[in-house]
This record gives sequence, C-alpha cells and structure tokens, in this order.
Amino acid sequence: MRTIRSGVWLGLGLVCFLTSLAAQPQQLSGEWNLQTRMYGVAESNRLHVVQVDNALSGYVYEYGERVAISGRVSGSKLVFSISQDWGLESFTGEVQSDALSGGVEVKGKRPASGDWTAERIVTRTRPAQTFEFDPTQFHSELSSTVPPALHIFPGDSVHTRSIDAGGQDEAGARVAYGSNPLTGPFYVEGAMPGDVLAVTIKRLRLNRDWATSDEALISKVLTSGYTSEHRQNWAATRWHLDREHNVATLEDAPPELKTFSVPLRPMLGGIGVAPEAGQPPLSTQDSGDLGGNLDCNQITEGSTVYLPVFQPGALLYLGDAHALQGDGELNGNALETSMDIEFSVDVQREKDIGGPRVENHDYIMAIGLAGSLDAAIRLATSDLARWIENDYKLTGPGVAAVLGTSTEYSISEMPDRNVGIVAKLRKQALALIHPMPRRIDKSMRDTPGQSATSSLVRETGSW
Amino acid sequence: MRTIRSGVWLGLGLVCFLTSLAAQPQQLSGEWNLQTRMYGVAESNRLHVVQVDNALSGYVYEYGERVAISGRVSGSKLVFSISQDWGLESFTGEVQSDALSGGVEVKGKRPASGDWTAERIVTRTRPAQTFEFDPTQFHSELSSTVPPALHIFPGDSVHTRSIDAGGQDEAGARVAYGSNPLTGPFYVEGAMPGDVLAVTIKRLRLNRDWATSDEALISKVLTSGYTSEHRQNWAATRWHLDREHNVATLEDAPPELKTFSVPLRPMLGGIGVAPEAGQPPLSTQDSGDLGGNLDCNQITEGSTVYLPVFQPGALLYLGDAHALQGDGELNGNALETSMDIEFSVDVQREKDIGGPRVENHDYIMAIGLAGSLDAAIRLATSDLARWIENDYKLTGPGVAAVLGTSTEYSISEMPDRNVGIVAKLRKQALALIHPMPRRIDKSMRDTPGQSATSSLVRETGSW
Amino acid sequence: MRTIRSGVWLGLGLVCFLTSLAAQPQQLSGEWNLQTRMYGVAESNRLHVVQVDNALSGYVYEYGERVAISGRVSGSKLVFSISQDWGLESFTGEVQSDALSGGVEVKGKRPASGDWTAERIVTRTRPAQTFEFDPTQFHSELSSTVPPALHIFPGDSVHTRSIDAGGQDEAGARVAYGSNPLTGPFYVEGAMPGDVLAVTIKRLRLNRDWATSDEALISKVLTSGYTSEHRQNWAATRWHLDREHNVATLEDAPPELKTFSVPLRPMLGGIGVAPEAGQPPLSTQDSGDLGGNLDCNQITEGSTVYLPVFQPGALLYLGDAHALQGDGELNGNALETSMDIEFSVDVQREKDIGGPRVENHDYIMAIGLAGSLDAAIRLATSDLARWIENDYKLTGPGVAAVLGTSTEYSISEMPDRNVGIVAKLRKQALALIHPMPRRIDKSMRDTPGQSATSSLVRETGSW
Amino acid sequence: MRTIRSGVWLGLGLVCFLTSLAAQPQQLSGEWNLQTRMYGVAESNRLHVVQVDNALSGYVYEYGERVAISGRVSGSKLVFSISQDWGLESFTGEVQSDALSGGVEVKGKRPASGDWTAERIVTRTRPAQTFEFDPTQFHSELSSTVPPALHIFPGDSVHTRSIDAGGQDEAGARVAYGSNPLTGPFYVEGAMPGDVLAVTIKRLRLNRDWATSDEALISKVLTSGYTSEHRQNWAATRWHLDREHNVATLEDAPPELKTFSVPLRPMLGGIGVAPEAGQPPLSTQDSGDLGGNLDCNQITEGSTVYLPVFQPGALLYLGDAHALQGDGELNGNALETSMDIEFSVDVQREKDIGGPRVENHDYIMAIGLAGSLDAAIRLATSDLARWIENDYKLTGPGVAAVLGTSTEYSISEMPDRNVGIVAKLRKQALALIHPMPRRIDKSMRDTPGQSATSSLVRETGSW
Repeated sequence: MRTIRSGVWLGLGLVCFLTSLAAQPQQLSGEWNLQTRMYGVAESNRLHVVQVDNALSGYVYEYGERVAISGRVSGSKLVFSISQDWGLESFTGEVQSDALSGGVEVKGKRPASGDWTAERIVTRTRPAQTFEFDPTQFHSELSSTVPPALHIFPGDSVHTRSIDAGGQDEAGARVAYGSNPLTGPFYVEGAMPGDVLAVTIKRLRLNRDWATSDEALISKVLTSGYTSEHRQNWAATRWHLDREHNVATLEDAPPELKTFSVPLRPMLGGIGVAPEAGQPPLSTQDSGDLGGNLDCNQITEGSTVYLPVFQPGALLYLGDAHALQGDGELNGNALETSMDIEFSVDVQREKDIGGPRVENHDYIMAIGLAGSLDAAIRLATSDLARWIENDYKLTGPGVAAVLGTSTEYSISEMPDRNVGIVAKLRKQALALIHPMPRRIDKSMRDTPGQSATSSLVRETGSW
Repeated sequence: MRTIRSGVWLGLGLVCFLTSLAAQPQQLSGEWNLQTRMYGVAESNRLHVVQVDNALSGYVYEYGERVAISGRVSGSKLVFSISQDWGLESFTGEVQSDALSGGVEVKGKRPASGDWTAERIVTRTRPAQTFEFDPTQFHSELSSTVPPALHIFPGDSVHTRSIDAGGQDEAGARVAYGSNPLTGPFYVEGAMPGDVLAVTIKRLRLNRDWATSDEALISKVLTSGYTSEHRQNWAATRWHLDREHNVATLEDAPPELKTFSVPLRPMLGGIGVAPEAGQPPLSTQDSGDLGGNLDCNQITEGSTVYLPVFQPGALLYLGDAHALQGDGELNGNALETSMDIEFSVDVQREKDIGGPRVENHDYIMAIGLAGSLDAAIRLATSDLARWIENDYKLTGPGVAAVLGTSTEYSISEMPDRNVGIVAKLRKQALALIHPMPRRIDKSMRDTPGQSATSSLVRETGSW
Repeated sequence: MRTIRSGVWLGLGLVCFLTSLAAQPQQLSGEWNLQTRMYGVAESNRLHVVQVDNALSGYVYEYGERVAISGRVSGSKLVFSISQDWGLESFTGEVQSDALSGGVEVKGKRPASGDWTAERIVTRTRPAQTFEFDPTQFHSELSSTVPPALHIFPGDSVHTRSIDAGGQDEAGARVAYGSNPLTGPFYVEGAMPGDVLAVTIKRLRLNRDWATSDEALISKVLTSGYTSEHRQNWAATRWHLDREHNVATLEDAPPELKTFSVPLRPMLGGIGVAPEAGQPPLSTQDSGDLGGNLDCNQITEGSTVYLPVFQPGALLYLGDAHALQGDGELNGNALETSMDIEFSVDVQREKDIGGPRVENHDYIMAIGLAGSLDAAIRLATSDLARWIENDYKLTGPGVAAVLGTSTEYSISEMPDRNVGIVAKLRKQALALIHPMPRRIDKSMRDTPGQSATSSLVRETGSW
Repeated sequence: MRTIRSGVWLGLGLVCFLTSLAAQPQQLSGEWNLQTRMYGVAESNRLHVVQVDNALSGYVYEYGERVAISGRVSGSKLVFSISQDWGLESFTGEVQSDALSGGVEVKGKRPASGDWTAERIVTRTRPAQTFEFDPTQFHSELSSTVPPALHIFPGDSVHTRSIDAGGQDEAGARVAYGSNPLTGPFYVEGAMPGDVLAVTIKRLRLNRDWATSDEALISKVLTSGYTSEHRQNWAATRWHLDREHNVATLEDAPPELKTFSVPLRPMLGGIGVAPEAGQPPLSTQDSGDLGGNLDCNQITEGSTVYLPVFQPGALLYLGDAHALQGDGELNGNALETSMDIEFSVDVQREKDIGGPRVENHDYIMAIGLAGSLDAAIRLATSDLARWIENDYKLTGPGVAAVLGTSTEYSISEMPDRNVGIVAKLRKQALALIHPMPRRIDKSMRDTPGQSATSSLVRETGSW
C-alpha cells in the first residue's frame, strides 16, 4: 500500500481551564518543538503559541500549512485541540518548568492515541561564528537517530573535512566503511520540519593529490549494441590531482591519454538531511527530496544548496567530494577524493520546496530525482516553475514565457537508484523581471538576540 | 558514487601451525557462520571447513561463488587466507570451545583491517513442526538488527496473523503505526547469504469482515489530459468482505455500484527478508531484490515465494494482506485488511536468483522491480530466462523459443517507488521440455539429523 | 514545433442569399463529406445540413464536437459560416447536381484561404452481404492515398486472406516486399472522421502448415548483465503448424525441445486505418491511435477491434497474422504465417476513443501505445477509465472502485518503436454494474434504407 | 513483426562472359548508383567497379560494409554476383551507353527476384559555387520521392530562406500548410547510402521582426501535482524580435514581464534527409536517425550538422527556424519565425554514425532521439563514445576516462514523439588527446575534377 502521511498522529485539542493562576498568564507564548509519539513513531512540528490571559491560540506547522490551535491553560494544566481532515485531535498536558508533556487522542475516521512533549525552540543569543570541526566518525546513512556532531545556529559557519567515497582520508588511511561516508550530522538550531535549510559552500579545496575512479562506463547510458561490442572493465583507475596547475591526469594513462588532463572542479557529491518521521535512514548511496547522493557537479565552492527540513535541527550531513565529475557520473565514480570544507547555514522559515535546489553566481537550479529520467524531468521542471512563480511572482503565462525561452537542462547523475536532472535558469534572465521582487528569505540568520518569530510577525503582520 | 560491494572486507588467510595437537585433528570441519567486521560493518558468509590433520581447506560462499580457503590449525590457533581480485585476505584467530574469533588483514589495492568471529551453523535435530505465533510487535522496516520473533528450521511451519496496512488488527484496534506494519522477523536456521528462502503460503484467510481502500486513481497511470479533467478524491472507502459468498462490496456505494461485487482473492502484499550488510533497513512501503512491498496479487494461498537471503537466518517478515487487489494497485491501496496466515519455509542452498520469484499450481513467475516499467521488464524477463536456463537446462535458442511463444506479463504494482512487472510461464508449457530435469532444490528441509552439508557433498561429489 | 491541428483550415461561413429559388428549398438537407483543401492539404469532415426554405443550419463534426453552421442557399449559390476559436471561417460555393464546391476564407489570428467540395455520404440501400476478396496487392504503409480495394457497408462481411510478415503467401511464394504487407484497404461507406470503426474477426484460420520466427530475444527486455553473458543469435527458426492437434513445434528443435509444443492461437498482428489529413502514411511496422502493428495476442477469432476513423471510409488494412505469439513478441517476430480471414465491419457514429480497443467474449481492453511502457500505461488506463465512465455511466469514485479492484494488465508488444500495454476488465465484473446501461452503439449497420442521420436524430432528440 | 532489413534484395552475381569484345575492356570501371527493385521497393547502393580486361571486381557498399563483387563483361552483356548471409545473389544485365540494367535472382533461405539499373555517379567538374535558391514549395514530409529542388556538389553553398513552422513567410503571408514546412530537397551529387552528409550553417539570420509561440508548458515535463494546480492555456503568444538590440520581447507582456527580454539565438529546428528504401516519408514534426524535427538549440550559425545518407543525393531538407529556444522547447513551440539561410554541404564517404551529430567551435555533440529520455541517453552516449573511439583512436579505458570526466548533457526537445538528449564534449578536452589524429574526413569537396574514388583509392591503398 501507499504511504499514509504520518500527520494523522498529530493534533491539538480543546483547552480546559482547570485552575486559575492569574499571576503568570504569558508564560507559554513563543515557539515550541512539539513532538508527538504514537505506536513507536515520533513526529516533530513547530508549535507557535500565543497566550493571552488563559487562552491559547497560534498554530502548528505541518505539511506546508499553519493549522490553527485553540486551547487554554490553567495553572500547570493545559489543553488544546486542532481540527484535521481526519478528525479532531485533542492534546491534554502539564507544564513542567520549560517543558510540556501529556497525552493526545484522535477521534474520527482514523482514531488513535499517543503522548507528546514540547520544548522551547532555541534562538540565537550570540553573534555568528565559525566552528572548527574535526570529524572522527563518518556515516553511511542519513539518519535522524545519530547524535549530532555539533550544534550550530543559522548564520554560523563550520570548517571541517570529508573523507573519500571509499573511506580513505587525506593521508590515505582507511577510516570508514566505504560507500560515501559523510561528515556530520550538524544540528541547526531553530530549523523545524517545513523549513528550508540553506547551506552555502564557502570553501571547498582538495587536501590530497590523488583520486580514484573506474575505467568503465555504466550500462545504463549505453545501448545493448554498444555494450555487446565493448565489454566494460571495472578496474579502478587512479588520477593525479595537480593543484598547482589545477588539472587532473591519469596516473597510469594509456598511450593516447599521456597528455590528457582535465580541469579540477571540486564539488560535493553528498549533501543531505535526516529523513522524515516514520521513514528508515537513507543510504548515502541513495537520494531523495532530502538530498543525499546528489552527485551534481554544480555543488561547488560558492554555491548554496537548499534542502527541505524534516527533523528538528535538520541534521545536515555532507561529503563524498569529487575533484571533478562529468555530467552523469558515467564511470559510476567521479574522481573520488578527500576535501577541506567550509560552509555556513541559514534557515528559511516555513517554505515549501519540491526537492533539492542549488544557486550559484549565475544560475538557480532545481534538481529532479527519480527512478527514470522521464520522471525526473517532471520534478525538476515543476519545482523550477514553482520557484519563479513564488519568488518572482509570475503567473502561468509568465512562467511559461520564462521557462520556454530560458530553461537549460543538464543531467547530474545516472548510476544510482535515482537519476537526476537539473533544470536551470540564468539569473541574468531573471534580473529582467520587473519589478524585481524583494527576496524575502525569512532568514533566521541576521539578528542575534532577535527571535525568528518576531521577525516573522513583522513580516507577515499577523497569523 | 556507486556501491562498493562489501566483500572487500572478507577474506581468508594462510594458516600458520603454531603448536602441535595431534589428538583432535577433525574438530573444525563443518559449516560456520563467518562474520567479519570492518569499520562498523558486519558481513556474514557461510564458511565451509574441511580439516584433515592440521590442514584446513573448504570455501567461503560469497557473491554467488565458492571461494577456496587454505589454512592450518595448531592447537587453539588457526590461520587461513583467500585470494580475491582486490588482494590477499588473511585471517588469524583462536578456537574457543565452539566459536572462533580473530583479526583479518586485507593487502593489495584496497588495504583494510578488521576482526571476525565464527559460530557453527545450526542444523535440524528434530522433525518439522508447526508453531503458533501470536505477534505483539509489528515492523515498518525490513531490518537486520531487530531481534528475531521466532527461530524455525527449514521444513517448519508457522501459524500466525497480520494486521492491516494502517495498523489495525482483526478487532479493528489500532496496534501499530500504519505503513504496512509486518509480522516477524522469523529466523530460519541454516539460511545464509547466497541461499534462497522458499516461503509457501499454506493458508491465507480473512479474519474480519471489512477492508479499507481509496476512492481515487494514482496519477502515475493516468495521462495529464485525464487528470486535468478528473480531479481525484483521496477519501478512504470501506468495503464489506462477505466471506460466505466470497465477495467484497462497497459499504457506501454510489448508486451505479449498489449491486457491484468483486470476488475475494486474499493475498500478501508484503513479504521480504533483511537487507545485506552495509545497507540501512528498507521501509515496508518500498521493495527490492529482498522482496518487501511487492503488492503482487499472485501471492495467494498455495503459492511459494522465493527470496534471496542476505543475512544469517534470512529474517523473514510478512503481512500487508489484501482481501483482493487489481493489477497495479491503482487506488494506491488495495482492499487492506487483517489476515490469518500459515506458511512453511525451506532453504535452497547457494543458489542465485535475480529477485523475488513466485510459483503456484499453474505458473512460475519472476518479478522485476525498478523505478520504471521499462527497467522492470528487463529484470523480470532476464530472471525468468535464467530460471528456465538453469532449472530446465535450456540454451539460448531454447530459452528464446520458450519465452517468445509462452511468456505472459502482468503488472503487479504501480504506486510505490519501485513498480513491478511479473513475467510468467505456464508450467504446462514447461512440462513439455524433455527430458524433464530432476528438480534439485538442494532443500535443507527433508532429513532431520542429516546435515545440509553432507547432502551437498553427496550431490556435488566434492568441492 | 508541435502539431498545429489542421482544423484551422475548416470552417463554415455566413450565408449570403444571392438569388431566390423558392421551388426546391429542401435539396441540401442530409449528410455530406465536406472536403476543404488549403496549401495542398485536404481534410474531410461530416457536414450535416438541415435546409428549411433557404436557411441552412446543422453542424460540422470535427475534433470530437458538433460545431454549428449557419448559412443560406440561393439558387445554385450558397454561403455558410462557422465561428472557431481561431477566427471566423466563411464558405461560399455553388450547387452542381449532387456536389457542392467553392472557396473558403479564414479571418482572425491565423488568416488562411482555400477551396472546398462536398459530396453526399452514401448510405446503404441493400441488405448486408459477404464479399469474397482475393488480394493481388499488399501494402507496407497505412495510407490515405491508395485506391480502395473494395467498398463495403457497415454490416457487410469480407472473406479474404493475408500473406505473412515476410511477404510469402499460403503457397510459400514471395508476392510482396516483406515488412508486414497488409491486405486492403477496405472503404467503409458512411465512416467519417470522428466515428469509430468496429471490425469483428469472424474467422481466422491457418492456411499453411509452417511459420517463421527468430531464435533470439530482443535486447529491450533484457538487462545489460544478461545480454553481455548471452549473445543473441538472430537466425530464423521455422515452426511446424500442426492444425490437427492444434499445436506448433520447432522444425529443427534443440534436443531439449524435441517434445516441446505450443498451442496454436491464431491472431492478427496488423490492423489499422488510414492516418489523418496532413500526416504521412504510417509504416506497417509502426503503430498509433489508428492501429497498425499492434501485435496484440488478444486479436483472435471472435474478437472485435475498435479504431478511430480519420479518413472518409476509414480505409481498413489488416494482416501480419501470427499462428501464436507470447506477450511482448519477444523474438522480434511471432510465429509468422499466412491466414484465411473473415471479418465484418460496423461504424459507431461520432464517438471518441483514445486509441485501439478490443473486445472479446470475456474482456474489454484498451491498448496504450507509446515510446515507453511508462507512457503506454497512462494511455491504456485512461482510455479504459473513459470507456467505463462513458459506456457504464460511472463517476470518479465508481471508476476508481472498478479499476482498482478489477483491472488486469498485459504487455502486447515490445520490439517496435511503440510498445503496447493492454488494460483489461472482465465483462463479468462489468455485468454487476446496475442498472446496466443500454449500450447505444449508434451503429450504422442495422437498417438498410434507413439513414444513419435519422436514427441519430431519434436518439438524441435534436442537435 | 520487426523490420526485415531490405538488403535481402540486393546482390551481385557471377559473371558469365557471353561474347568477346576485346576492344573496350575498361569501360565499366568507376562508381555507379546501383538500384535494385523487388516487389515495388527500390534500394540504391554504391557499386564500385574495377574492370580489368573482361573481369569485374569491386564492391557494393551496404549496411556499413564493402561487400565484394565478382563478375565478367562480354560485349554488351554482363554478370556479377555476391554472396550474402541469406544466399547468393546473381545479377545479369546489359550495357546501354552509360547505363546498365537487368535482372537479379536471390537464392537461399529467402529466395526472391527483381530487376536493377545502374547509372554512373556524377563527380564534380567545376569549382565550388554558391547558389541563390528562392523556394516556392515547402514540404511537411521528408520524402525520397519529391523531385529535388536543386542539384549541388560537395563544397557548394546555397543561399535560401525558410518560412516559419506555421507556414508564414518573411512578409507574414501564409504560403504553406503549417507543421514545420521545410525548404528543399537539395540533391547532393555523389552522396550515397552509407555516407555522411555534413551541412555547415554559414549564415542564419532573422528576416522579419516577429515570432509566435504559446503561453503554456507541455505536460510531459510537469508533475500531475503541478498540472492539476496550473491549468495550461494554449493561446498563441507573439514576440517582437529586436534585431538592433538582439533580443526578443513579448508583444503583449503581463505586467511582471514588461521589461523581460531574451537574447536572440537563431537556430534551425528542422534539418534532415530522405528516409531509407521501404520506409514511408517522415513527418517534419517527427525525427529519427535521418534528422528531422531536431529542435536542438545548438544548430546555430557556424555549426555543422552530420546526417547519415539513406538515398542517392541525400535529399536535404531544412527550415523550422527559431529566433531562440530554451532547452526542451517547453512551450511546444519555440519563437517560430522565418529566416535567411546560407549553408554549404560536404560528404564523408562510407562512414557510420548512429544518428544526427553536431559540431561547433566549442563542442562535438551526438543527439539521441527516442521515445523516452531513458532510451535517448543510451543512443546519445553510445554515439559520442563511438565518435571519440573512431576519430580519436581511443580504446575502452580511454573512452571511459574522457566521457566520465568531460561529458556534458543537455536536453534538446521534449514535445514530440521522440525526445532528444545531446551528449557533448568540449573540443578543448579532445585537443589534449595525443597524438592528435589527422582527421580524415574522406571529404568529397576539395578537388574539382578529381574523383572521390581516386582519393579514396589513394587513402586506403586498395580494397
């Protein structure tokens, strides 16, 4: 059967005012990480509470929407409810210092029950800073259960390093099981499901002078006629990375390629966040809306990668660096190597994107990932269309005129379970859309000490 | 990057005879579950040892092949080695009562190191029996780390039950998070990676009188023209299961379907085993070579499902029962219900199949699962071709003649990440191939007290 | 660029009454084959005229709709016009005995001009009959410019024969260039673009005792892994057709297939009509909405094939008979042979079907033909959904309930440019839909001497 | 059934010397267009004859190979034969001034008979020149039966013009039925089946200041979710082409696009040659190995398009010019306009390419055209691999190293029956392959008065 979206488990209930404590009526206002647990599955959502006297209002953000709550608080007791398509969900609970907890009941077509907790979402209280992070563990899964390697705030940067896809580090020592072991996870404070994590690759530099690849072509891009004439040999090849001249050369080149070299173009093959509640970890060889093994050669120094957030803190993983990679990663591997990395993070609050997006100096790019190119192009094009529709305020004919004249496609990767198509638009073209919209990224980065909530309230007036 | 097969971690090393213990020269002969661990990943393989005096020979079975070992034992010390494409792998270790353990070094292109243990593979010492198993936990992942619910032997049967895809049991109580929660896992003694698990559905019966489905069609099977004219409504529908007349009817039918009924045809939507070493758990909404959410309406009472084994004991999960399902599971859900199940298991030793296979009274069937139908048909047809090539001893023109005249295709499921195509051959056609090969299933079921090894040795002479 | 639908050329203009001829006011009422020619392309449509005194009303049927005309006749002069999305189209002309002709002007966004003629559509004046037709020419293209081999009426039958796909007849003589040479074309009087041609295979019998095929499997259904291990040999094979025992056997069988036989199941691989105006002929190796090289093993004796009509008379071609064929035609060829054929035709007036449909005693079937299976399944399912929506008066949830529980898929053919998926429903299931709709096929077959128009008018009241 | 390659009809037979005419022994040496006709299908091949006394040797070029002939001439009588896989083919005939003709018999598995003629292939006798060609007829099919508009030689140029996809010329007058009406066909002397036609676009300039397009996006690149939210409106849009500032702007722009402009980048959407013997004409909306509606925005001024030749003279058609087009032609139409064109032609003798190729200052590009992107990428990549394998003398690992590091993909067009993927390599990368092969294009262009044959003989020594 198909996925049942786990939101069935979440809800907010009618408040019953059980005691009268007029002294501290505003104590629950603010933002909470509301975690509900039913039948072993825990789902987190942003709970935005406004308490006026004993009345609670606000919203839970889920599935791309603000769903209003209504409730009351009475001393240490609180109740609130929410009306969903599938029935009324009622939360009852208690206030314990800075945490809430209690039980939840779902009534209606799909009755259910469980419990919940809520903790205040942390906001930044210090200026942005750059962390030095030297990893000792690497991960072959994007998982929501691995303890974070580091907690950072929107606006912060991290200087770290990745090992290569086979688990070898900058000194050539094997330190991890090889299948794209990634560095992380980084917990980004304030990021909640339904937000977008923006990761800017500030620095991406080689830290050793060799890479490995394969001397064959994957069959998925070849005709049967070609493959029956050309048996592929999956031996490993080794490339010399000449950082002085910025080129790669084959260490053991066949005669005709003795003088062949390719410009280095360091990129991150793997970048992603933890999967949504109820889903198992994702192998770092696989990909999806949450990113993962994107193998997109546009993710270079200076680019920003946008990823949907599915878990509190987003839980960012990155690595699988390539010294360079042709479109499609046709050898199954690119030029796999270790890398020195600096990145910064930001969070765009409550924004819906259809999958990974990339932006660099010249382009905005939407990546479509699916089991076939014919499915991937639908995802990439639709997400690029939504991007300019939402951020440039275009309607149908405008979207059609811009996409029809200006779209560029490339193919990011072919070897893995998902293949990737990149739909791109030059910013030069977008700059001619007038009046250029003020980009409101709803960033949480800008003002230390100012809560994301208050900036949101200013921006949107009220909710 | 592409998957690096984890076999790089496994190897067998040169024996050094360190002490002289002439008294017990035969103690290591037999079969072992050899588990090697490198960088956090544990891989298991069958180790077949023949000890003659102090010399060790035999094989490790990995990647569909018997790779010869060579070594020696000296008192409580042993060494053995194996030569792989990627280098020489050397195992050193100690004998501790009925277990072995030690360290492993890989030399060559991809140097690595780790440790290993080995335990004797258990063989049956009692007649086949039928277990009653009443599940209390259900699983939304096919995982190798969940403790087995029950240990059984080839030839044994289990009588148990499944809950529905939404987590509701035969009484309608919600007892699990819904997304195809499965019953299990069942540990099948003797099953090792490279074997095939055969699961025969001896009994599959409804145990309640209702099922749920959806009143919409999935967009993946519809044209854009159709979908833009027919907005799909994803409301749930409820069907009455009339066991007396063996039909399902809509509980709240539109006028034109008041008299509409469909014959019940109970089937298991989910059946699969734990994934291979180094891979994360598989969601029970997903599928693959290991089975999973097959949603194939051929898996009914009387059918046998063949699955490749990737973990010791196979770790069988099953459930997601459907009262009936059309081809393709076009509503996203079939008629989802709970079920009473009895199945038996058998193991076919060291046999390579390309993915799930099904056999019933009339057909042999190979299921191709991939991200597109065009990829799935390649898998299904190739596996069916290998099936008759290997089991009916046909060569190329014979395979072509049989497949070209007799193949039947159906489409098992469309909603999920993998779609499925079933390539089928009638056994009636196969019965005309002469001389009919004696089916040598290398079953481990038949003779209590007789080790699988000895029957193997008899069958193949020597290795 | 995309196809511009040629309908831009057609239209009907404002009538100018130029002369007064009160004597014969009713002479233009009835149905006409209106042919407009612009820039070398001729398009035909049914023109339904009702003349009351000097006023002309009625419609032109194009693109699945009746578009109203308005005009006047004055002596031998007439004018009429039609308002289309792309502008006003005005026809002026003269009446010459039983033919009309003149000029047409299109004004608006896409101005154009051309000329037109109209001839009365012939209706049946004799009882249905069976023709003996012995073909001397065979056609490797479905073309609208080949002179009809025979003119027949709805309700008539034809007894004829086909040669094999390689151009050899029942005596083994090569009489045509081989690539599915077909018999025909048959002009079906009264069939006009927008109608449906129903061809019932009344008799389909072998007329020789051998067939040819190939001893290889097409690469499109095999994995790269399989093809690199199994080189396919495209030698021809020859099968003996044993009509007494109703089986086929390999003439030069490999040892293991000496006793192998397959039941004969004669079918027509090729059946189709001429393409629409402005399109080149279709190779008989190709397929499309108009039918063609369907290679669907459901098109056997007793089945009825429905095809959309694109040219006056439909221009039916058929042949490429197979003694039997597995799903997918995996050898590239089936068991190709010559055949004795009897078929009858009928016409369903002004009915929209999405592509070829087949009906037999047990099933209704919609065939989806496209460049990939993933595209073909969309066509097949959508057309089957429309079929039951229109003919069984189901709405969305009803369509979803029937398709979700009862759809069966098979794959008709794989080797050619289009692959085919067949979406099927058992009539047994459909029979439970209540109240069963009276099937109104708008057949033109039933009543000699009664015009299709008048039955239409009765059925629909007025237009 | 599958295509039977028509080569079965061709052959060359044993010479019987019937008369003795010692006086003129050398008269048949040279190259001939050999046309064989069987059952209504005519196929042409290059016949290369070397006559020494009365003995005939040489070859017929077919299916990418030189197949040796052996024969004799005696006065006005000649005989020659060829041995094919499918049997011995014998030609008998007479010499009539500068033409040959006679009968052909095929013996073996597939017996057949027919007749043949041969005319000398014309070679250039004057310097290259530029023709002015003002077209009066336009063609919506790539056909081998349309009389050539102009005969030219390799090395010649043609200055002509195209009308737009809807049939409107530079003055806005509708002069043809619209569906990509093309200019041509141009007969290139000396081009024979199995050769490659190279068309260099020397000049491609707008000749009017407007273009049309559509204000919608094709559904094939959009998800169902997107299309159900965004109904596409297929109204035409009109763009102003500002040749002074080299940009296009929407004539009736929505507010947000009032200042939007796109750089002009004139390209030819349609370029192709006549189809092979036995195949019907190809619609100019369709594409294939022979080119056609490529809609590839790389075919701009300065680029060279390579097309396989299937008919004597190649029969080149071109047109469907676009002022500019985004990748994928997402509006169904690009900015459709008329154009001023100058092109030159060349012929590469007896060279096998897998489909259309394009070369410009920066890139070599292979276009894959198929019914799905997943099939198209196989064609494009395999043809690019063969290109560098053959022209740069790379072996497997070299091909893999170059493609893996340097391939770029784009998607040319999506709306039509075939979609297109372009696989590209930068010439800058290829320039580093050493020793750079001398490109031997076997051009027929260079030396007026020198026959292509003699240059070939010099190049290859002997055959």
